[in-house]
Amino acid sequence: MPADQNRQIHLVRLPEGALHEDSFALVSGPMPEPAEGEVLCRTLYLSIDAANRAWMQGATYRSALEAGQVMAGGVLAEVVSSRDSGFAPGDIVEAGYGWQEHAAVPARHLAKVTPRGPLVHHLSVLGVTGLTAYLGLLDIGRPQAGETLVVSAAAGAVGNVVGQLGKLLGMRVVGVAGAEEKCQWLVDDLGFDAAVSYRDPSFFRALKAACPGGIDVYFDNTGGDVLAAALFQMRSHGRIVCCGVVSQYDTANPGPGPRGVPGLLVTKRLRMEGFIVGDLWEGRPERRDEALDQLAEWVDTGSLRAVEDVVEGLERAPWALIDLLGGGNVGKRVVRVA
Amino acid sequence: MPADQNRQIHLVRLPEGALHEDSFALVSGPMPEPAEGEVLCRTLYLSIDAANRAWMQGATYRSALEAGQVMAGGVLAEVVSSRDSGFAPGDIVEAGYGWQEHAAVPARHLAKVTPRGPLVHHLSVLGVTGLTAYLGLLDIGRPQAGETLVVSAAAGAVGNVVGQLGKLLGMRVVGVAGAEEKCQWLVDDLGFDAAVSYRDPSFFRALKAACPGGIDVYFDNTGGDVLAAALFQMRSHGRIVCCGVVSQYDTANPGPGPRGVPGLLVTKRLRMEGFIVGDLWEGRPERRDEALDQLAEWVDTGSLRAVEDVVEGLERAPWALIDLLGGGNVGKRVVRVA
Repeated sequence: MPADQNRQIHLVRLPEGALHEDSFALVSGPMPEPAEGEVLCRTLYLSIDAANRAWMQGATYRSALEAGQVMAGGVLAEVVSSRDSGFAPGDIVEAGYGWQEHAAVPARHLAKVTPRGPLVHHLSVLGVTGLTAYLGLLDIGRPQAGETLVVSAAAGAVGNVVGQLGKLLGMRVVGVAGAEEKCQWLVDDLGFDAAVSYRDPSFFRALKAACPGGIDVYFDNTGGDVLAAALFQMRSHGRIVCCGVVSQYDTANPGPGPRGVPGLLVTKRLRMEGFIVGDLWEGRPERRDEALDQLAEWVDTGSLRAVEDVVEGLERAPWALIDLLGGGNVGKRVVRVA
Repeated sequence: MPADQNRQIHLVRLPEGALHEDSFALVSGPMPEPAEGEVLCRTLYLSIDAANRAWMQGATYRSALEAGQVMAGGVLAEVVSSRDSGFAPGDIVEAGYGWQEHAAVPARHLAKVTPRGPLVHHLSVLGVTGLTAYLGLLDIGRPQAGETLVVSAAAGAVGNVVGQLGKLLGMRVVGVAGAEEKCQWLVDDLGFDAAVSYRDPSFFRALKAACPGGIDVYFDNTGGDVLAAALFQMRSHGRIVCCGVVSQYDTANPGPGPRGVPGLLVTKRLRMEGFIVGDLWEGRPERRDEALDQLAEWVDTGSLRAVEDVVEGLERAPWALIDLLGGGNVGKRVVRVA
């Protein structure tokens, strides 16, 4: 392929049931040219997120994905050339232009990143992932030292950070994951107090045993059966942080809601609240900066581990997403493009 | 029956499916004698609440009801004699001793009422019912003038007050009720902007048409299908006040939760929160007093209508509850005992 070609992955058809690789195609096109006010970016990493699949189900906080376009998603990129005075070659930026090697992007769609440590951290613990964990747990979950925190998809990108933060805040932390090895790793390597597999036939009892006093904060990345089980273990005045619903994304037929909604919310006086991370610093950008500073400090001192799961090569992005939906990742999955 | 007898209604068996009158029996016993520190009360009114049925389903914020006891419930009573220095004959009190003509009660289980207007108001708009509507709407719903409020069981005890308060706060108010006549009454007599019957086969569309900009605050007294429909019409950052679940109380098999939980909570950034009214003034009793003063002022000036549905005679209490579960009441249902 000539050097002046731009490789892209297109979403060529929307999935009807579970996502397969035939929804995607690798396409080669001309190198984009930035217009006045635009910046030419070279993609370093793609952020692979369960939400990418949710966007195919319909309009959410963004419009639904349509077939025939570059697959959408977050990226970390380097500026190649700039026709905007705010950006210069070599700058590192966050963007949302999707699965392609290069893009010419209006400057207002870019956020400059001040590198701290390995660049990939800006897609994991020092990026949206870390902010989602930190601000979701603190601002929605309002945790207290000594309380019990349960987090689902606990070995995933956001989940592992939430659990580690819970420990730093003095909570009892219980992770829920699929594979036994993940559960072992959460306890042995990340310092969770306990971890339970939702594939365990006696999952409900195992979760109960791991939370002898009940659950004060449930950070929910999955919805579905794990949410249903957690609901029945919530303590009065507990809080459920609704961050994601990965159990219901890769299907055309999402299941019914959990039994106990809204009955248990009334009798136990529970709060269930959803959020999109950007909401939590809207109107107060200093909250984002504080959070990033705190996360960086914990990473620097070794109190918080950045866990990344790097897949090599743009062409493997479809596999990377499909595998993530099946629980194949540990930590933040990214695709290294350049 | 001799005058020194105390008539009581016992819960003689727990219902297996829908509640029937054969779960209850009218029993006559000796007149209770107050011990030191107790107060002898004569029941004026019973408060008939959907929650009475929920208590039969299992432990909630109180222990489950058991067969063989006086049926539990709120009452408004007059003090007959007192062996506690805090109460004197003629005092009006709120209590929770259940469906009986008299009771000897420890003084700490009584709350003195300062009568304002008709005594029955202290079980409706100037009692727990009014406080639930006022504090639930304001402190959980956090309404803004110009927003759209939907309330279910809108012709019921709490619902009609919530809707009236919404109008006083400058909101667009849409009620959901069963019978067509109730819907008409909500609009014509109580000043709701619209009312929709959940029995309408095109309920979903009718609700949508009544809320052209979507719903900002949904005050949920029913759960079930009405909650499911409202969820899909919520605007971003909307709030769902979980007050009751009357659609799921009179059964041994509550339905699954609404589709869209937790997915819509995430994508629309919704907050769903349950409460028990006493929580909302815990640690700040002045909040309760402020609320009662405001409610009384609105009643006095004619801005807020007290709607009561009075059934005569202790022996009709079982019917009064069963009929309420079927939607037979308009406004706050009470049973006049003396």
